[in-house]
Amino acid sequence: MIYTSKLIEDAVNAFCKLPGIGKKTALRMVLHLLKEPEDTTRIFTESIAKMRTEIKFCETCNNIADGQICSICANPSRKKELICVVENFRDLITIENTGQFSGVYHILGGLLSPLEGIGPDQLYINQLLERIHQDRPKELIMALSPTIEGDTTVYYINKLVNDPAILISGIARGVAFGGELEYTDEITLGKAIVRRLPVDMLQQ
Amino acid sequence: MIYTSKLIEDAVNAFCKLPGIGKKTALRMVLHLLKEPEDTTRIFTESIAKMRTEIKFCETCNNIADGQICSICANPSRKKELICVVENFRDLITIENTGQFSGVYHILGGLLSPLEGIGPDQLYINQLLERIHQDRPKELIMALSPTIEGDTTVYYINKLVNDPAILISGIARGVAFGGELEYTDEITLGKAIVRRLPVDMLQQ
Repeated sequence: MIYTSKLIEDAVNAFCKLPGIGKKTALRMVLHLLKEPEDTTRIFTESIAKMRTEIKFCETCNNIADGQICSICANPSRKKELICVVENFRDLITIENTGQFSGVYHILGGLLSPLEGIGPDQLYINQLLERIHQDRPKELIMALSPTIEGDTTVYYINKLVNDPAILISGIARGVAFGGELEYTDEITLGKAIVRRLPVDMLQQ
Repeated sequence: MIYTSKLIEDAVNAFCKLPGIGKKTALRMVLHLLKEPEDTTRIFTESIAKMRTEIKFCETCNNIADGQICSICANPSRKKELICVVENFRDLITIENTGQFSGVYHILGGLLSPLEGIGPDQLYINQLLERIHQDRPKELIMALSPTIEGDTTVYYINKLVNDPAILISGIARGVAFGGELEYTDEITLGKAIVRRLPVDMLQQ
Protein backbone atom coordinates (compact mmCIF):
# COMPACT_ATOMS: atom_id res chain seq x y z
CA MET A 1 0.00 0.00 0.00
CA ILE A 2 1.32 3.46 -0.99
CA TYR A 3 0.39 6.41 1.25
CA THR A 4 2.46 9.16 -0.44
CA SER A 5 3.44 10.37 3.08
CA LYS A 6 5.89 8.77 5.48
CA LEU A 7 4.11 10.33 8.47
CA ILE A 8 0.79 8.76 7.46
CA GLU A 9 2.47 5.44 6.75
CA ASP A 10 4.12 5.33 10.18
CA ALA A 11 0.86 6.21 11.93
CA VAL A 12 -1.08 3.58 9.93
CA ASN A 13 1.55 0.95 10.81
CA ALA A 14 1.31 1.97 14.48
CA PHE A 15 -2.46 1.35 14.50
CA CYS A 16 -2.01 -1.93 12.58
CA LYS A 17 -0.03 -3.35 15.51
CA LEU A 18 -3.20 -3.30 17.62
CA PRO A 19 -5.29 -6.50 17.70
CA GLY A 20 -7.95 -6.74 15.00
CA ILE A 21 -6.88 -3.59 13.13
CA GLY A 22 -6.07 -3.91 9.43
CA LYS A 23 -4.60 -1.33 7.01
CA LYS A 24 -7.97 0.08 5.95
CA THR A 25 -9.30 0.54 9.48
CA ALA A 26 -5.96 2.02 10.56
CA LEU A 27 -6.09 4.56 7.72
CA ARG A 28 -9.66 5.46 8.69
CA MET A 29 -8.47 6.18 12.24
CA VAL A 30 -5.52 8.27 11.06
CA LEU A 31 -7.74 10.33 8.74
CA HIS A 32 -10.25 10.78 11.55
CA LEU A 33 -7.52 12.21 13.81
CA LEU A 34 -6.38 14.48 10.96
CA LYS A 35 -9.90 15.86 10.57
CA GLU A 36 -10.24 16.62 14.29
CA PRO A 37 -8.37 19.48 16.04
CA GLU A 38 -4.77 18.77 17.08
CA ASP A 39 -5.85 18.67 20.73
CA THR A 40 -7.86 15.48 20.14
CA THR A 41 -4.71 13.64 19.08
CA ARG A 42 -2.72 15.16 21.94
CA ILE A 43 -5.25 13.98 24.54
CA PHE A 44 -5.50 10.57 22.83
CA THR A 45 -1.76 9.87 22.77
CA GLU A 46 -1.13 11.37 26.21
CA SER A 47 -3.73 9.29 28.02
CA ILE A 48 -2.42 6.09 26.42
CA ALA A 49 1.23 6.93 27.13
CA LYS A 50 0.34 7.88 30.72
CA MET A 51 -1.61 4.66 31.25
CA ARG A 52 1.33 2.55 30.04
CA THR A 53 4.03 4.27 32.07
CA GLU A 54 2.11 4.84 35.32
CA ILE A 55 0.11 1.64 35.62
CA LYS A 56 0.99 -0.68 38.51
CA PHE A 57 -0.21 -4.05 39.72
CA CYS A 58 -1.84 -4.39 43.14
CA GLU A 59 0.57 -5.97 45.64
CA THR A 60 -2.27 -7.89 47.25
CA CYS A 61 -4.41 -9.21 44.40
CA ASN A 62 -2.44 -8.46 41.14
CA ASN A 63 -5.29 -6.32 39.83
CA ILE A 64 -4.34 -3.35 37.65
CA ALA A 65 -3.85 -0.41 39.98
CA ASP A 66 -3.16 3.31 39.89
CA GLY A 67 -0.98 2.97 43.02
CA GLN A 68 0.54 0.15 45.11
CA ILE A 69 -2.89 -1.15 46.14
CA CYS A 70 -5.85 -1.37 43.74
CA SER A 71 -9.07 0.55 44.34
CA ILE A 72 -10.92 -2.63 45.38
CA CYS A 73 -8.37 -3.75 48.00
CA ALA A 74 -8.13 -0.16 49.25
CA ASN A 75 -11.91 0.11 49.67
CA PRO A 76 -12.77 -0.43 53.38
CA SER A 77 -16.34 -1.46 52.57
CA ARG A 78 -15.27 -4.53 50.56
CA LYS A 79 -15.43 -7.78 52.57
CA LYS A 80 -11.84 -9.00 52.94
CA GLU A 81 -12.99 -12.43 54.19
CA LEU A 82 -14.47 -13.22 50.77
CA ILE A 83 -11.88 -13.72 48.01
CA CYS A 84 -12.98 -14.28 44.42
CA VAL A 85 -10.24 -16.06 42.46
CA VAL A 86 -10.20 -15.09 38.76
CA GLU A 87 -8.00 -15.83 35.77
CA ASN A 88 -7.30 -12.28 34.65
CA PHE A 89 -8.25 -8.59 34.72
CA ARG A 90 -10.96 -9.02 32.07
CA ASP A 91 -12.80 -11.59 34.19
CA LEU A 92 -12.40 -9.35 37.24
CA ILE A 93 -14.09 -6.37 35.61
CA THR A 94 -16.76 -8.62 34.07
CA ILE A 95 -17.69 -9.82 37.59
CA GLU A 96 -17.30 -6.31 39.01
CA ASN A 97 -19.76 -5.00 36.45
CA THR A 98 -22.47 -7.47 37.55
CA GLY A 99 -22.62 -5.46 40.80
CA GLN A 100 -23.27 -8.74 42.67
CA PHE A 101 -19.94 -9.16 44.47
CA SER A 102 -18.82 -7.19 47.50
CA GLY A 103 -15.66 -9.12 48.46
CA VAL A 104 -12.11 -8.80 47.11
CA TYR A 105 -10.34 -10.55 44.23
CA HIS A 106 -7.22 -12.53 43.50
CA ILE A 107 -5.94 -12.65 39.91
CA LEU A 108 -4.10 -15.88 39.06
CA GLY A 109 -2.65 -14.59 35.77
CA GLY A 110 -3.75 -17.72 33.89
CA LEU A 111 -4.95 -21.29 34.36
CA LEU A 112 -3.02 -24.51 34.86
CA SER A 113 -2.45 -26.14 31.50
CA PRO A 114 0.05 -29.01 31.31
CA LEU A 115 -0.45 -29.14 27.53
CA GLU A 116 0.74 -25.54 27.14
CA GLY A 117 3.41 -25.96 29.81
CA ILE A 118 1.73 -23.65 32.33
CA GLY A 119 2.39 -24.98 35.82
CA PRO A 120 1.68 -23.55 39.30
CA ASP A 121 4.92 -21.53 39.28
CA GLN A 122 3.78 -19.44 36.31
CA LEU A 123 0.62 -18.40 38.20
CA TYR A 124 0.11 -16.35 41.37
CA ILE A 125 -0.89 -19.46 43.36
CA ASN A 126 1.83 -19.21 46.01
CA GLN A 127 0.88 -15.60 46.57
CA LEU A 128 -2.74 -16.73 47.05
CA LEU A 129 -1.68 -19.34 49.64
CA GLU A 130 0.34 -16.75 51.56
CA ARG A 131 -2.59 -14.38 51.47
CA ILE A 132 -4.94 -17.09 52.78
CA HIS A 133 -2.44 -17.93 55.51
CA GLN A 134 -2.20 -14.29 56.54
CA ASP A 135 -5.76 -12.96 56.10
CA ARG A 136 -7.68 -16.16 57.01
CA PRO A 137 -10.63 -15.55 54.65
CA LYS A 138 -13.91 -17.44 55.22
CA GLU A 139 -14.50 -18.31 51.59
CA LEU A 140 -12.70 -18.59 48.28
CA ILE A 141 -15.01 -18.29 45.26
CA MET A 142 -13.32 -19.99 42.30
CA ALA A 143 -14.72 -17.92 39.38
CA LEU A 144 -12.74 -19.66 36.65
CA SER A 145 -13.90 -20.58 33.15
CA PRO A 146 -15.79 -23.92 33.04
CA THR A 147 -13.08 -25.60 30.92
CA ILE A 148 -10.65 -28.44 31.57
CA GLU A 149 -7.95 -25.90 32.52
CA GLY A 150 -10.33 -24.03 34.82
CA ASP A 151 -11.51 -27.22 36.53
CA THR A 152 -7.91 -28.46 36.92
CA THR A 153 -6.94 -25.17 38.58
CA VAL A 154 -9.93 -25.30 40.94
CA TYR A 155 -9.09 -28.90 41.88
CA TYR A 156 -5.40 -28.07 42.44
CA ILE A 157 -6.06 -25.03 44.64
CA ASN A 158 -8.77 -26.91 46.54
CA LYS A 159 -6.26 -29.65 47.40
CA LEU A 160 -3.50 -27.17 48.37
CA VAL A 161 -5.66 -25.08 50.69
CA ASN A 162 -7.21 -28.12 52.41
CA ASP A 163 -8.46 -26.17 55.43
CA PRO A 164 -11.90 -27.02 56.90
CA ALA A 165 -12.25 -23.41 58.13
CA ILE A 166 -12.20 -22.09 54.55
CA LEU A 167 -15.10 -22.82 52.22
CA ILE A 168 -14.04 -23.21 48.60
CA SER A 169 -16.95 -22.61 46.24
CA GLY A 170 -17.38 -22.45 42.47
CA ILE A 171 -19.75 -20.21 40.52
CA ALA A 172 -23.10 -21.83 39.65
CA ARG A 173 -23.38 -23.62 36.32
CA GLY A 174 -26.61 -24.03 34.41
CA VAL A 175 -28.54 -22.62 31.50
CA ALA A 176 -27.80 -18.97 30.75
CA PHE A 177 -30.41 -16.32 31.48
CA GLY A 178 -32.30 -15.62 28.25
CA GLY A 179 -30.75 -18.68 26.58
CA GLU A 180 -32.97 -21.12 24.71
CA LEU A 181 -33.02 -24.74 25.90
CA GLU A 182 -32.92 -25.99 22.30
CA TYR A 183 -29.46 -24.47 21.81
CA THR A 184 -27.97 -25.36 25.20
CA ASP A 185 -25.33 -28.09 25.02
CA GLU A 186 -26.25 -31.47 26.49
CA ILE A 187 -23.72 -31.51 29.35
CA THR A 188 -24.85 -28.12 30.67
CA LEU A 189 -28.53 -28.98 30.31
CA GLY A 190 -28.04 -32.42 31.92
CA LYS A 191 -26.26 -30.90 34.92
CA ALA A 192 -28.87 -28.14 35.15
CA ILE A 193 -31.58 -30.81 35.49
CA VAL A 194 -29.64 -32.82 38.09
CA ARG A 195 -28.91 -29.64 40.12
CA ARG A 196 -32.44 -28.27 39.89
CA LEU A 197 -33.55 -25.82 42.58
CA PRO A 198 -36.92 -24.94 44.17
CA VAL A 199 -38.51 -22.14 42.14
CA ASP A 200 -38.39 -19.69 45.10
CA MET A 201 -34.62 -20.07 45.24
CA LEU A 202 -34.24 -19.51 41.49
CA GLN A 203 -36.04 -16.20 41.76
CA GLN A 204 -33.81 -14.86 44.51
CA MET B 1 -18.62 0.15 32.97
CA ILE B 2 -16.30 -0.07 35.99
CA TYR B 3 -12.55 -0.46 35.31
CA THR B 4 -11.22 -0.18 38.90
CA SER B 5 -8.42 2.04 37.53
CA LYS B 6 -8.67 5.65 36.38
CA LEU B 7 -5.64 5.20 34.06
CA ILE B 8 -7.31 2.27 32.28
CA GLU B 9 -10.60 4.14 32.09
CA ASP B 10 -9.00 7.21 30.50
CA ALA B 11 -7.13 5.07 27.95
CA VAL B 12 -10.30 3.11 27.08
CA ASN B 13 -12.22 6.36 26.62
CA ALA B 14 -9.42 7.67 24.39
CA PHE B 15 -9.69 4.64 22.08
CA CYS B 16 -13.50 4.88 22.12
CA LYS B 17 -13.31 8.29 20.41
CA LEU B 18 -11.94 6.59 17.28
CA PRO B 19 -14.48 5.63 14.60
CA GLY B 20 -15.97 2.13 14.99
CA ILE B 21 -14.34 1.41 18.36
CA GLY B 22 -16.61 0.42 21.26
CA LYS B 23 -15.78 -0.10 24.95
CA LYS B 24 -14.95 -3.80 24.59
CA THR B 25 -12.61 -3.35 21.61
CA ALA B 26 -10.99 -0.35 23.33
CA LEU B 27 -10.34 -2.42 26.45
CA ARG B 28 -8.84 -5.19 24.32
CA MET B 29 -6.42 -2.67 22.80
CA VAL B 30 -5.45 -1.22 26.17
CA LEU B 31 -4.80 -4.69 27.62
CA HIS B 32 -2.79 -5.60 24.52
CA LEU B 33 -0.55 -2.55 25.06
CA LEU B 34 -0.19 -3.47 28.75
CA LYS B 35 0.97 -6.97 27.83
CA GLU B 36 3.60 -5.67 25.38
CA PRO B 37 6.83 -3.93 26.50
CA GLU B 38 6.57 -0.22 27.33
CA ASP B 39 8.47 0.63 24.14
CA THR B 40 5.56 -0.62 21.96
CA THR B 41 3.27 2.00 23.51
CA ARG B 42 5.95 4.70 23.27
CA ILE B 43 6.47 4.05 19.54
CA PHE B 44 2.70 3.85 19.01
CA THR B 45 1.87 7.15 20.69
CA GLU B 46 4.91 8.97 19.32
CA SER B 47 4.25 8.13 15.67
CA ILE B 48 0.62 9.22 15.96
CA ALA B 49 1.49 12.45 17.80
CA LYS B 50 4.24 13.18 15.25
CA MET B 51 1.90 12.55 12.32
CA ARG B 52 -0.69 14.96 13.70
CA THR B 53 1.69 17.81 14.52
CA GLU B 54 3.99 17.60 11.50
CA ILE B 55 1.57 16.79 8.69
CA LYS B 56 1.09 19.46 6.04
CA PHE B 57 -1.05 19.84 2.95
CA CYS B 58 0.57 20.14 -0.48
CA GLU B 59 0.43 23.74 -1.72
CA THR B 60 -0.17 22.54 -5.26
CA CYS B 61 -2.68 19.69 -5.01
CA ASN B 62 -3.90 19.64 -1.34
CA ASN B 63 -2.60 16.11 -0.88
CA ILE B 64 -1.31 15.17 2.56
CA ALA B 65 2.39 15.99 2.58
CA ASP B 66 5.45 15.65 4.79
CA GLY B 67 6.71 19.05 3.56
CA GLN B 68 5.32 22.00 1.57
CA ILE B 69 4.96 19.90 -1.59
CA CYS B 70 3.69 16.30 -1.56
CA SER B 71 5.83 13.41 -2.76
CA ILE B 72 3.82 13.08 -5.99
CA CYS B 73 4.09 16.76 -7.04
CA ALA B 74 7.79 16.69 -6.08
CA ASN B 75 8.47 13.62 -8.22
CA PRO B 76 10.04 14.78 -11.55
CA SER B 77 8.96 11.60 -13.35
CA ARG B 78 5.22 12.31 -12.83
CA LYS B 79 3.55 13.88 -15.87
CA LYS B 80 2.48 17.38 -14.83
CA GLU B 81 0.34 17.81 -17.96
CA LEU B 82 -2.07 15.13 -16.71
CA ILE B 83 -4.10 16.14 -13.64
CA CYS B 84 -6.42 13.63 -11.98
CA VAL B 85 -9.13 15.45 -10.00
CA VAL B 86 -10.28 13.49 -6.92
CA GLU B 87 -12.63 14.11 -4.02
CA ASN B 88 -10.27 13.33 -1.15
CA PHE B 89 -7.06 11.69 0.05
CA ARG B 90 -8.67 8.23 0.30
CA ASP B 91 -9.59 8.30 -3.39
CA LEU B 92 -6.09 9.56 -4.26
CA ILE B 93 -4.35 6.65 -2.59
CA THR B 94 -6.89 4.18 -3.99
CA ILE B 95 -5.99 5.33 -7.52
CA GLU B 96 -2.29 5.52 -6.64
CA ASN B 97 -2.38 1.89 -5.51
CA THR B 98 -3.72 0.72 -8.88
CA GLY B 99 -0.28 1.64 -10.30
CA GLN B 100 -2.04 2.77 -13.50
CA PHE B 101 -1.63 6.53 -13.22
CA SER B 102 1.57 8.47 -13.81
CA GLY B 103 0.25 12.05 -13.74
CA VAL B 104 -0.41 14.35 -10.78
CA TYR B 105 -3.53 14.89 -8.66
CA HIS B 106 -5.78 17.66 -7.45
CA ILE B 107 -7.87 17.08 -4.32
CA LEU B 108 -11.16 19.00 -4.29
CA GLY B 109 -11.91 18.37 -0.62
CA GLY B 110 -15.49 17.27 -1.35
CA LEU B 111 -18.18 17.32 -4.03
CA LEU B 112 -20.75 19.97 -4.91
CA SER B 113 -23.97 19.23 -3.03
CA PRO B 114 -26.64 21.94 -2.97
CA LEU B 115 -28.72 19.75 -0.63
CA GLU B 116 -25.97 19.72 1.99
CA GLY B 117 -25.07 23.35 1.31
CA ILE B 118 -21.68 22.58 -0.24
CA GLY B 119 -20.98 25.10 -2.98
CA PRO B 120 -17.88 25.81 -5.12
CA ASP B 121 -16.38 28.09 -2.42
CA GLN B 122 -16.12 25.22 0.07
CA LEU B 123 -14.05 23.19 -2.41
CA TYR B 124 -10.60 23.79 -3.94
CA ILE B 125 -12.09 24.60 -7.35
CA ASN B 126 -10.64 28.12 -7.66
CA GLN B 127 -7.24 26.73 -6.82
CA LEU B 128 -7.72 24.15 -9.61
CA LEU B 129 -8.61 26.88 -12.11
CA GLU B 130 -5.52 28.92 -11.16
CA ARG B 131 -3.40 25.81 -11.52
CA ILE B 132 -4.85 25.08 -14.96
CA HIS B 133 -4.24 28.69 -15.98
CA GLN B 134 -0.63 28.53 -14.81
CA ASP B 135 0.47 24.98 -15.75
CA ARG B 136 -1.63 24.53 -18.93
CA PRO B 137 -2.21 20.75 -18.54
CA LYS B 138 -3.32 18.73 -21.57
CA GLU B 139 -5.92 16.69 -19.75
CA LEU B 140 -8.04 16.71 -16.59
CA ILE B 141 -9.24 13.26 -15.55
CA MET B 142 -12.33 13.67 -13.40
CA ALA B 143 -12.07 10.63 -11.10
CA LEU B 144 -15.11 11.41 -8.95
CA SER B 145 -17.68 8.98 -7.56
CA PRO B 146 -20.45 8.13 -10.06
CA THR B 147 -23.14 9.81 -7.97
CA ILE B 148 -25.36 12.85 -8.50
CA GLU B 149 -22.88 14.99 -6.52
CA GLY B 150 -19.93 13.62 -8.52
CA ASP B 151 -21.63 14.19 -11.86
CA THR B 152 -22.71 17.72 -10.83
CA THR B 153 -19.11 18.56 -9.91
CA VAL B 154 -17.78 17.17 -13.21
CA TYR B 155 -20.37 19.18 -15.14
CA TYR B 156 -19.60 22.38 -13.20
CA ILE B 157 -15.82 22.15 -13.63
CA ASN B 158 -16.23 21.20 -17.30
CA LYS B 159 -18.25 24.40 -17.87
CA LEU B 160 -15.81 26.58 -15.94
CA VAL B 161 -12.68 25.36 -17.71
CA ASN B 162 -14.23 25.58 -21.19
CA ASP B 163 -10.89 25.49 -23.05
CA PRO B 164 -10.60 23.48 -26.29
CA ALA B 165 -6.89 22.90 -25.60
CA ILE B 166 -7.68 20.95 -22.43
CA LEU B 167 -9.36 17.55 -22.67
CA ILE B 168 -11.68 16.83 -19.74
CA SER B 169 -12.24 13.10 -19.35
CA GLY B 170 -14.08 10.90 -16.84
CA ILE B 171 -13.06 7.44 -15.65
CA ALA B 172 -14.67 4.56 -17.57
CA ARG B 173 -17.93 3.14 -16.27
CA GLY B 174 -19.07 -0.40 -16.82
CA VAL B 175 -19.29 -3.77 -15.15
CA ALA B 176 -16.64 -4.36 -12.47
CA PHE B 177 -13.85 -6.85 -13.08
CA GLY B 178 -14.85 -10.16 -11.48
CA GLY B 179 -18.43 -8.93 -10.98
CA GLU B 180 -21.36 -11.13 -12.00
CA LEU B 181 -23.76 -9.75 -14.60
CA GLU B 182 -26.72 -11.08 -12.63
CA TYR B 183 -25.93 -8.74 -9.72
CA THR B 184 -24.98 -5.66 -11.77
CA ASP B 185 -27.54 -2.85 -11.57
CA GLU B 186 -29.55 -2.14 -14.70
CA ILE B 187 -28.24 1.37 -15.39
CA THR B 188 -24.60 0.26 -15.27
CA LEU B 189 -25.27 -2.84 -17.36
CA GLY B 190 -27.34 -0.87 -19.90
CA LYS B 191 -24.58 1.70 -20.35
CA ALA B 192 -21.95 -1.04 -20.54
CA ILE B 193 -23.84 -2.55 -23.50
CA VAL B 194 -24.28 0.78 -25.26
CA ARG B 195 -20.58 1.63 -24.78
CA ARG B 196 -19.31 -1.81 -25.80
CA LEU B 197 -15.72 -2.05 -27.08
CA PRO B 198 -13.92 -4.39 -29.54
CA VAL B 199 -12.53 -7.36 -27.58
CA ASP B 200 -8.89 -6.44 -28.42
CA MET B 201 -9.38 -3.05 -26.72
CA LEU B 202 -10.94 -4.65 -23.63
CA GLN B 203 -7.89 -6.81 -23.14
CA GLN B 204 -5.44 -3.95 -23.22
